[in-house]
Amino acid sequence: MQRSRVTNLFIALFHYPVYNKNYKETASAITTLDIHDIARVARTYGVRGYFIVTPLRDQRELAYKVIKHWTDGYGSVYNPLRREALRLVSIRSSLDEVIEDIERVEGKRPILIATDARRYNDKEMISYQELRKLIMQERLILILFGTAWGLTEEFLNKMDMLLEPIEGYTDYNHLSVRSAAAIILDRLLGKN
Amino acid sequence: MQRSRVTNLFIALFHYPVYNKNYKETASAITTLDIHDIARVARTYGVRGYFIVTPLRDQRELAYKVIKHWTDGYGSVYNPLRREALRLVSIRSSLDEVIEDIERVEGKRPILIATDARRYNDKEMISYQELRKLIMQERLILILFGTAWGLTEEFLNKMDMLLEPIEGYTDYNHLSVRSAAAIILDRLLGKN
Repeated sequence: MQRSRVTNLFIALFHYPVYNKNYKETASAITTLDIHDIARVARTYGVRGYFIVTPLRDQRELAYKVIKHWTDGYGSVYNPLRREALRLVSIRSSLDEVIEDIERVEGKRPILIATDARRYNDKEMISYQELRKLIMQERLILILFGTAWGLTEEFLNKMDMLLEPIEGYTDYNHLSVRSAAAIILDRLLGKN
Repeated sequence: MQRSRVTNLFIALFHYPVYNKNYKETASAITTLDIHDIARVARTYGVRGYFIVTPLRDQRELAYKVIKHWTDGYGSVYNPLRREALRLVSIRSSLDEVIEDIERVEGKRPILIATDARRYNDKEMISYQELRKLIMQERLILILFGTAWGLTEEFLNKMDMLLEPIEGYTDYNHLSVRSAAAIILDRLLGKN
């Protein structure tokens, strides 16, 4: 039997407002594998829901088609495990929509915690250990990930806290958002 | 300045011999993002080298083209950070070739440790903590990852040890190899 302990943790992947390569604000394109890989990680670690966020309608339609193929279409029969993961995914156009959604179901606003590869000295940071504790206390939390070159600083200023950057064995710090999300959820929820 | 502490750890991604969906032995196709994502994780965590392994010549040529684009071609100018990661990648046709390669450079055979989502009671398992210790002792180690539905059992029997499966908060255990590699290297080398 499937053990399906579920946390009060939601995650969201933002395609806007993010930086492009030249640190200008942009809306990035959806990468199909971001939907799949992160949904499978979310399902593994008992994440409550996974939001894909973009203000671009054609991009939302693309994401919707991908998800529908695997949850209702041929893909759901071909690979039911994929369906089980993709059922966690919702597509929204903005942070406000995501917050409203969570509030409608949970009756309160989640704590907003963004992830970033950079360190900001003027913003409140939370460690993995501290955030792990909040999750164990069943606090309602939304963790936000940015695509492209990361969430803009203006957007980060709306957060309640930032999660410490991932640090490896070296100073190289350029993971894909897929890898970063996997590592972060394992640090917060993995049984090591 | 870039801190570039490098371990004695090599990793390899095998496209053969792996299981397909029906648990028949197969050679899987190369996924371009497996090359990129895992190379970036490898670079972040100070992995010494990353081998992509497939017996199919056309697949090796495809992988070679991808890498060449980012290390020597237009991509190396467009995104030098990508180049730095992909420089770690070598393409080989078999485990024997990988071992010979490492032996030629290091003068000895690496300890072979495979990863798998399944538990095998008849095989020697190593925990993350124990393997972390071996790495800190600068032992020469090759960690093997399988694509598709995982490395075949016959192949696993050639290993010195298997690494414990990743466990999350639930019994769902169907991560992409990209996510699994990110989580495993963070558990072994991350500064949490």
